[in-house]
Amino acid sequence: MQDILDKIAEKMALRTERGKVADYIPQLACVDPDQFGMAVVLPDGRQFSAGCADKTFSIQSISKVFTLTMALGKIGDTVWSRVGREPSGDPFNSIVQLEHEAGKPRNPFINAGAIAIVDAIMMSHRPKETLAEVLQFVRFVADDESIFFDEKVAQSELLHRDRNASLAHFMASFGRIKHPVEHVLGVYFHQCAIAMSCTQLASAGQFLVSDGMNLSTGIRVVSPQRARRINSLMLMCGHYDGSGEFAYRVGLPGKSGVGGGILAIAPGNASIAVWSPGLDDIGNSKLGTEALEMLVQHTGWSIFGH
Amino acid sequence: MQDILDKIAEKMALRTERGKVADYIPQLACVDPDQFGMAVVLPDGRQFSAGCADKTFSIQSISKVFTLTMALGKIGDTVWSRVGREPSGDPFNSIVQLEHEAGKPRNPFINAGAIAIVDAIMMSHRPKETLAEVLQFVRFVADDESIFFDEKVAQSELLHRDRNASLAHFMASFGRIKHPVEHVLGVYFHQCAIAMSCTQLASAGQFLVSDGMNLSTGIRVVSPQRARRINSLMLMCGHYDGSGEFAYRVGLPGKSGVGGGILAIAPGNASIAVWSPGLDDIGNSKLGTEALEMLVQHTGWSIFGH
Amino acid sequence: MQDILDKIAEKMALRTERGKVADYIPQLACVDPDQFGMAVVLPDGRQFSAGCADKTFSIQSISKVFTLTMALGKIGDTVWSRVGREPSGDPFNSIVQLEHEAGKPRNPFINAGAIAIVDAIMMSHRPKETLAEVLQFVRFVADDESIFFDEKVAQSELLHRDRNASLAHFMASFGRIKHPVEHVLGVYFHQCAIAMSCTQLASAGQFLVSDGMNLSTGIRVVSPQRARRINSLMLMCGHYDGSGEFAYRVGLPGKSGVGGGILAIAPGNASIAVWSPGLDDIGNSKLGTEALEMLVQHTGWSIFGH
Amino acid sequence: MQDILDKIAEKMALRTERGKVADYIPQLACVDPDQFGMAVVLPDGRQFSAGCADKTFSIQSISKVFTLTMALGKIGDTVWSRVGREPSGDPFNSIVQLEHEAGKPRNPFINAGAIAIVDAIMMSHRPKETLAEVLQFVRFVADDESIFFDEKVAQSELLHRDRNASLAHFMASFGRIKHPVEHVLGVYFHQCAIAMSCTQLASAGQFLVSDGMNLSTGIRVVSPQRARRINSLMLMCGHYDGSGEFAYRVGLPGKSGVGGGILAIAPGNASIAVWSPGLDDIGNSKLGTEALEMLVQHTGWSIFGH
Repeated sequence: MQDILDKIAEKMALRTERGKVADYIPQLACVDPDQFGMAVVLPDGRQFSAGCADKTFSIQSISKVFTLTMALGKIGDTVWSRVGREPSGDPFNSIVQLEHEAGKPRNPFINAGAIAIVDAIMMSHRPKETLAEVLQFVRFVADDESIFFDEKVAQSELLHRDRNASLAHFMASFGRIKHPVEHVLGVYFHQCAIAMSCTQLASAGQFLVSDGMNLSTGIRVVSPQRARRINSLMLMCGHYDGSGEFAYRVGLPGKSGVGGGILAIAPGNASIAVWSPGLDDIGNSKLGTEALEMLVQHTGWSIFGH
Repeated sequence: MQDILDKIAEKMALRTERGKVADYIPQLACVDPDQFGMAVVLPDGRQFSAGCADKTFSIQSISKVFTLTMALGKIGDTVWSRVGREPSGDPFNSIVQLEHEAGKPRNPFINAGAIAIVDAIMMSHRPKETLAEVLQFVRFVADDESIFFDEKVAQSELLHRDRNASLAHFMASFGRIKHPVEHVLGVYFHQCAIAMSCTQLASAGQFLVSDGMNLSTGIRVVSPQRARRINSLMLMCGHYDGSGEFAYRVGLPGKSGVGGGILAIAPGNASIAVWSPGLDDIGNSKLGTEALEMLVQHTGWSIFGH
Repeated sequence: MQDILDKIAEKMALRTERGKVADYIPQLACVDPDQFGMAVVLPDGRQFSAGCADKTFSIQSISKVFTLTMALGKIGDTVWSRVGREPSGDPFNSIVQLEHEAGKPRNPFINAGAIAIVDAIMMSHRPKETLAEVLQFVRFVADDESIFFDEKVAQSELLHRDRNASLAHFMASFGRIKHPVEHVLGVYFHQCAIAMSCTQLASAGQFLVSDGMNLSTGIRVVSPQRARRINSLMLMCGHYDGSGEFAYRVGLPGKSGVGGGILAIAPGNASIAVWSPGLDDIGNSKLGTEALEMLVQHTGWSIFGH
Repeated sequence: MQDILDKIAEKMALRTERGKVADYIPQLACVDPDQFGMAVVLPDGRQFSAGCADKTFSIQSISKVFTLTMALGKIGDTVWSRVGREPSGDPFNSIVQLEHEAGKPRNPFINAGAIAIVDAIMMSHRPKETLAEVLQFVRFVADDESIFFDEKVAQSELLHRDRNASLAHFMASFGRIKHPVEHVLGVYFHQCAIAMSCTQLASAGQFLVSDGMNLSTGIRVVSPQRARRINSLMLMCGHYDGSGEFAYRVGLPGKSGVGGGILAIAPGNASIAVWSPGLDDIGNSKLGTEALEMLVQHTGWSIFGH
């Protein structure tokens, strides 16, 4: 495994076309695009990594996997009255679908859906309490108390919140947001501003590899059925309007973030985190996707073969 | 395995809510909704079945898996200049997406995409020759020379061709259909009118279970990578706007048809065909989906767990 | 003229199907639907009225005629870099069109367009200053210093601002709103909360009857060309997705508001204001439209005949 | 009047930016873009013209005014169960709106609407009979028996019929086309291929100037109310997605065709036809619009002033 990762990192270091760093907030725009990191955690807990796998980055939308898991734990299948579970066929921040479907987001991984999930887990708590809970949960699944919110990123998101504010107010106009829009957005922007390294992120994904059980800690996080269902949602909707492309090329459930990170799950085989800040046209890490494609070619971990 | 199938068939026989039989053409509208059949073929060629698994039905859109496979064999990745590989977020016969994307269908499994695939495999041949080729290919993968076109269904489709004719002419107006629209539709309606039983269909899917090799016949149909990719497309787009739901509930690549059939692939484990004519709101077999859900619960074949 | 108005008011008093009062804010929902008023001002200044023509109501979107006129005066044709001048084919509060056209509203009379116009006239002033200016302008064209903002309605709009907030943030995300969204919305909600009677409103429309000149006061408000152009916009877009219907039935440039008012202009002939709180499905005054239809039948004022 | 037309023709002759000739069929693509003609008919029958006002051109969509008039005569307000009367906010050949509104075209002047109108006037007649009737009606309103179908243009349209065939089949799939699609299209393409000169076209529009009466022939074509309503539809929808622009700049009801012609009606004042083959981005005659703008500036005929 270490050999494979080293080879991948080597190849990635030579790439000149690295995509375009997200520039919608200054805090992300200034990240050096030449970075690459990758970490793999096997079911038995062994860890492998290459590149700057210990450098923290903004996990952004990858956090949506954790808040969805929290929401399912708190309110169970009622989650599906809040959001659908179909791919959207639209960009991550599209509002067209919301108007056509009376303010109900198509899935929990587009921005509108994730905002609706935040509203669902707030349960009349104050933003601060909800934030504490989210951070606690991420630290728990990653088994790492050092994970933190990058406050600068959160503040930068708040300053440039117009598109997400539009989505939230739109849903609120259909009665689909119960808490004050500003509170919900505050939690949402902090959740997206969680900073993690590849190593931490790969650890956090372990419970999805082994049917809901984190084998390293011996703790069951969710039931086997729920773990599978979260994986199915990651596959169908985890890369926005590039989900089909990711399934076709990589063949693993995965969730990307505009910070350049991707969490991918090879059920029974490994939890994988990769990071490279340059994005493709759709907003998914360009080198991250390529690296995962190579890894799966070498390991045969595609869920579409045997 | 036989036990499981018998139990499922038993339960299905008791269901009173069986969905609604497709009624857009008289030939499908008159099918008895009380029928149910299921067949499973293991990699070693052993076959199991329950219900009326040997009764033929109209495979309709399931045929799109076979024509896509043919197209990839004939023109390779050029296929993707004709159709995309993203879920559409729209009903199977929607034309809105086509207008927004200059006549290029989102994937090969919505109607417009399948029509474009027919145009791609015609390669200046006459409709009759193309039809012969399609039938030959299906007989080849199913290893069964008795498979045939149901001419009555094909004629019925031709008589009620307006929506598909609209899609085809629309693409033609963008220069995306090279052969006469009437020829392309003639082939398309015959392809959809292929009659197969669950047993035959499950056999035909075998090559997708074992990385492109039909282990029963010992013949490689496609490369391992191509088999995986076809599976990924089935998962992402095989149930139209209910693909997310199918992935969530069943967790297998699958392709449905409005005749009530579903072909599902458990990579490494089994090729499964199920048939029950009643459809859910989106147009996928209601009992077929439920039966597959049960089967996967009993066998643990979901690709999202291990 | 008085005879005609009296007859119309008489007929309207007998109507039992009066439409549905706007209920999106409590302040409008509680208005008595049985009210009807109408006022006509001729070019020479003579006034006629019937029903409760002196009772004030919330002019709502009719105010958009006045802010558009102000904007054209302040920044001239630059207005058209902010909003288009085509009918939208969508409901008044639709956001779909905005996404398809990069945040630029189709015309100044849909909500998004009117919000963009507010942003255009603010010109770095404080909301209070802009509000004072708007009120001053309306008082000036109506030649009536008693016109006021209904503060209760404005506050009610603010409390239920989600849909409009969504539109404003959406445009802001494309850089199309220069002032703080909350400031722009504050002005917009006050503008909509202007209270006027039919008599006042008909007076305010006089400058559009006589090619930009208010013949009663002898003051030129806008150039002849500009007056004609404002009339053309009222005809094309003044009744949202019911503009074609209004042109077909009434045949006059008009602007409706969800408070149940309509201002209609018969160029060269009269400025007409009508009010009845019940709305049709699209959000235009039901009896107001019928009354105008009758008036035009009796007077032959349609701009489509001679 | 002759002075004004001469001046306009002179100015137009000097224009170098003349737009782009329609190129979707070869028969239109080969027309010389340097041509310009204009004709004005006053209510008393006096005719004025300039440029090549006697050269025939393909009237294309202008014919829709005549078939709508025929349809209203034959089935009255039942027409409005077939098509709406709202501007579409979409290009002339868009299909998106049709899908959103169950196959009912928004108005009789977009392609889909005009095709539905053809279906309405066929009334179980053969295409040839309907064609004869259409030609007879146009000859009648123009008081000119020499008007003819340009068969070459009609055949060229048939050869390139895909987009319109798509629209027609789409409506047929909703049961909105009662006759065979090929028959309806045959009539539609011939109707569009009527060849007329500016002089003939201006004569044909006379009945819309004088409240439904052709004052030259003394024959009433439609009732005053119907004439006004046809004018209102021309204003709202006569220039596709550029109708707002035309109303704003010219201020007259008008109908354009991709052949470069425009028929404009100044109620009570004149029927005007203008022709110049170069089109603007939306598909309306570039110089034709400019010429009408000048004419209205000189004459004050805008319906939005007095």
